[in-house]
Order: sequence, then C-alpha cells, then structure tokens
Amino acid sequence: MKLNKNHNILIVGLGLIGGSYAMRLKKEGFTVKAITRSQSSIDYAVENGLIDEGSTEIDKRLIGEADFIVFALYPHIFIRWIEENQHLFKSGAIITDVTGVKCSIVYKIQEILREDVEFIAAHPMAGREVYGVENSDDSIFLGANYIVVPTEKNTPEAIELCRSLGEILQFKTVTELSPEKHDEMIAFLSQLTHCIAVSLMCANDTPGLEHYTGDSFRDLTRIARINDDMWSELFLSNREALLAEMESFMTTFNEMYECVKNNEREKMREMMRCSTQRRKRFDKIV
Amino acid sequence: MKLNKNHNILIVGLGLIGGSYAMRLKKEGFTVKAITRSQSSIDYAVENGLIDEGSTEIDKRLIGEADFIVFALYPHIFIRWIEENQHLFKSGAIITDVTGVKCSIVYKIQEILREDVEFIAAHPMAGREVYGVENSDDSIFLGANYIVVPTEKNTPEAIELCRSLGEILQFKTVTELSPEKHDEMIAFLSQLTHCIAVSLMCANDTPGLEHYTGDSFRDLTRIARINDDMWSELFLSNREALLAEMESFMTTFNEMYECVKNNEREKMREMMRCSTQRRKRFDKIV
Repeated sequence: MKLNKNHNILIVGLGLIGGSYAMRLKKEGFTVKAITRSQSSIDYAVENGLIDEGSTEIDKRLIGEADFIVFALYPHIFIRWIEENQHLFKSGAIITDVTGVKCSIVYKIQEILREDVEFIAAHPMAGREVYGVENSDDSIFLGANYIVVPTEKNTPEAIELCRSLGEILQFKTVTELSPEKHDEMIAFLSQLTHCIAVSLMCANDTPGLEHYTGDSFRDLTRIARINDDMWSELFLSNREALLAEMESFMTTFNEMYECVKNNEREKMREMMRCSTQRRKRFDKIV
Repeated sequence: MKLNKNHNILIVGLGLIGGSYAMRLKKEGFTVKAITRSQSSIDYAVENGLIDEGSTEIDKRLIGEADFIVFALYPHIFIRWIEENQHLFKSGAIITDVTGVKCSIVYKIQEILREDVEFIAAHPMAGREVYGVENSDDSIFLGANYIVVPTEKNTPEAIELCRSLGEILQFKTVTELSPEKHDEMIAFLSQLTHCIAVSLMCANDTPGLEHYTGDSFRDLTRIARINDDMWSELFLSNREALLAEMESFMTTFNEMYECVKNNEREKMREMMRCSTQRRKRFDKIV
C-alpha cells in the first residue's frame, strides 16, 4: 500500500529534515502532526503551514492516532524514545527514520519493538550545512537519492509504504540496501567526505587564506561546517566501516603522493583520467 | 596607470580563461585581439563578440601592435612562446599571465625577457571543470580572488596596470603575493584539493554508487573531472610545496583516523568545532 491521505502522519523531531518532510507532505495535502522538544519549532512550523498541529510533550493522543511515524532524531535519542514510549503506538502503526547509520540502529529497534508495530528504516541522502526547522526546504530532495533499508523482519507492505514516502518527497531515485551495505556506502560517500573536509580545514591556519582561495577549496570544505554533536555520534556508530574507508582513501592518496614525489607523470595522469571518467556518473540532474 | 581603451590588448591562448577575459573586456568596450591554435576557437570568439579579430599564426602585426598581452597557456608552452617570439613585442609592452604556478615561471620569464618589455604575473582564482572558449563565462570572476604576483624586477606602474585588469574583470578582491607565498598558498588551496578529489574518486569502484550518493560526495569530487595534461604539469611545477601540503594534510587526517579508532569523541568534536569556526571565513559572496 502506498502512503495516502487517510494516513495520520506524525513526525518526531522537527529539524531541517523533519521540517522539510513536513513541508512537502503538507503541500501534497497530507495531514501532518509533530512532536519536538522546542515550542518555538512547533510555533514556526504551524505558522508556516508545515504541520497541522504539534506538541513538545509525549502527547498520547498524537502518538496513539498516528498510522505512520517518521523519527528524525539523533541515533541514541531515537532508541531511548522507542524504549520509553512505544507502549503509546497504535497497533499496526508503521514507523520509519532518517538516521545516517543503520546497523547500529535497525537491529536494535527491531529487537525491542512491539510485535504489532513495524519499523522500516530509510536514509534520505539530502541535507544542508544549516540546521533547524526554520531552514526547512523541500527542494533539497530534488535530484537526490532515497535509500530504504529493509531487513528480513520487514514486510513487503511496509517496504512499499516507505518507498512511496520517498516518491512523494520527490527524490530522484528510491533504492534499497541491506543495513550492512548501507553502512559501507555511507562510510565512503558521506562519512569519509566529512572526515576529509574537517581535516583539510584544520590542516592549515595561515591567516588570510580566504583572500586567495578559489572554488575548489570552498567546495571541498562546505561540509567542514559541521554539527559536531551529531556527526561524532554517526562516525562512532559506524566505526569499523569508516576506518576501512579511511584506510582505503589513505592508500590511494599516498599513491598520488608517490607520483608527485617521484615525478611519475604518466601514472598521475592515469589516476586523473580514472577520476574524470568515474565522476561523470555523479552529476546531479534536478 | 590603469588599463584604458587606448591600450591594444592581445590574448594568447583562447580557452575558458582567455575567452572569459575577452568576454568581459569586450563588454567594457576594450579592443581585444587574440592568437590561438585552433581556427574554430577564433571563429567562435569573433562570431560571439568575444574578440575583434584573431589569428592562428604568430601574427607579427597583432603582436607588434599590442600594448598589453595576456598569456593563457600551459606553463611550458608559455616559456617556449616567449623564447621563440619575444623579438616581435612592441617596445614598452607589458605582458601578464594566468598560470597556476609562479616560482617556476616568473623568474624564468623575467630572466629571458627583453629589457624593454615587462612581465607582471597574475593568477585569477577562477575556473570551471569544463574547457574551451565555447564555455567562456565572465560571471566566473564574480566573488572570486585575483592575485598579482610581483617580483623585485616589477615597476609600480606595471603592478598597477595588472591590478586594474583584475578590477575590470570584476574580481571581488585583488591582492598581491610573492611567487614563493603564492605557490605555498596554491599548493594548499588548489593543488592539494585536486589531489584529494582525484584520490577520493579513485579509491572506490563499487558499481552504482551514484544511486546512493548525497551532495557532500558530489562537492568533494566536482574537480575530480580534471584536465590531466594541465594539472600534472602544474603539480610537478610546484612539487616541493605540494608535497609539504600533502604531508601536512595526511598528518591531520591521521589525527581524525586515530580519534575514530580510539573512540576519542571529544577530540574529534574539537576538530569539528575548529573546522566549523574556520570555514565561516570562506563563504563566497557574489
């Protein structure tokens, strides 16, 4: 079954992603409610038409009425929330998430979750270097990828429902990966890139660099403006996979270093031709 | 003296940068002529109003009439061009360049150049991952940095003339650096970033990654689509400075690796706060 307007949708955690989900769903005519910590986020979301109503409390009515719940919380808060409040879910409810790591979350949640409620994990590959519901912007999903992360415990119905959410949000592609494959991919595509950006930004404190820079440095460090609380948790929640990708990057970077050191121009050019060829597949078409 | 409309301007090498210089200068009402290898580039530039006239030959009249010449060539071709053709320059002519490395170029050119002609080096920190005069676009200079690279041999008049070119092209800032400082900066801001992008793109050949990626990976690899002929020459022309920056980056990246490996969350967060703080200075304001 696809998500439809008879579904009561609840979003828990109204930040940039939760708010942008709400924005798109409301534009499509869905009823969207929210629970989040700060009253000012609820106020902003109601005033700007992102949600129909919301609460800063663990509101029994809002939770008990919801057919489909999106959790947009930090990993450890998500797990604690389920432990403390899952008795309030409606029987038959489907819950999903937006968490950036999966193995350390999905199995744990599915293990502790009530039998009559199903958790289907998903990861929207969209974000920005700003935070908070005030920065909500549903155009961040255009041209972007949405990954559904099912396990053996998931039913085809819940997977279909979750995929339909990605389509409603207007993601360009909706795909499926196992938690293990997801975490490998994300270690390379997202976590390693953040490690690189942070390291690059920290590697040189010469004053005035901003007056000499070009766009390449700006591009490589856009994500160096980072939420240290969230990302340090994500890194450590996916430690083994991230370490493996960091090692693999260091090996390749060291090959380039050796090329420069030993004046191996042809080998350097081979690497550049390889990167040029591969990069073509990654252009974003909105 | 500033560049003015009595100056006869010649551009040698009509690619993306030479063409974009021509585009802006023509919009400002200057007379612009060009010498480049391919007739189709000349035809395109004349038809699209980027130049008044051009030649694929070493045209004695075009060179002999020019008061101000911009060389937009690969480093080794630039040096050879001067060696072979400098007898054709008008006495008193000022020449400049757009080359991405300076120590290996500036001293050599100034050493071999006729006494009655002055070379003032400059580096426009603007570029794109596409090539050729057909992609000319003078908006690439908006918000960007222009670095004039004088030596002891340069006169205040030539420096002023060169600075005025950066202003006419609408660069956001026009600064000056010595060749040595320039090459250090560029090793970090530009060459190291290209090494990272190429290495990142080469480090993982898992099929289908493009269906799972987010914008962070796209941003970090935009410049992995690279002109291998030009960039391998630039890397090796600035070998010592680049090796030093690569080593410094590896040291910092390895600190991040140790943080992940040893679960040192607080140290990791310190690096992230440092990068967040520093990155704020680099936003591009067009």
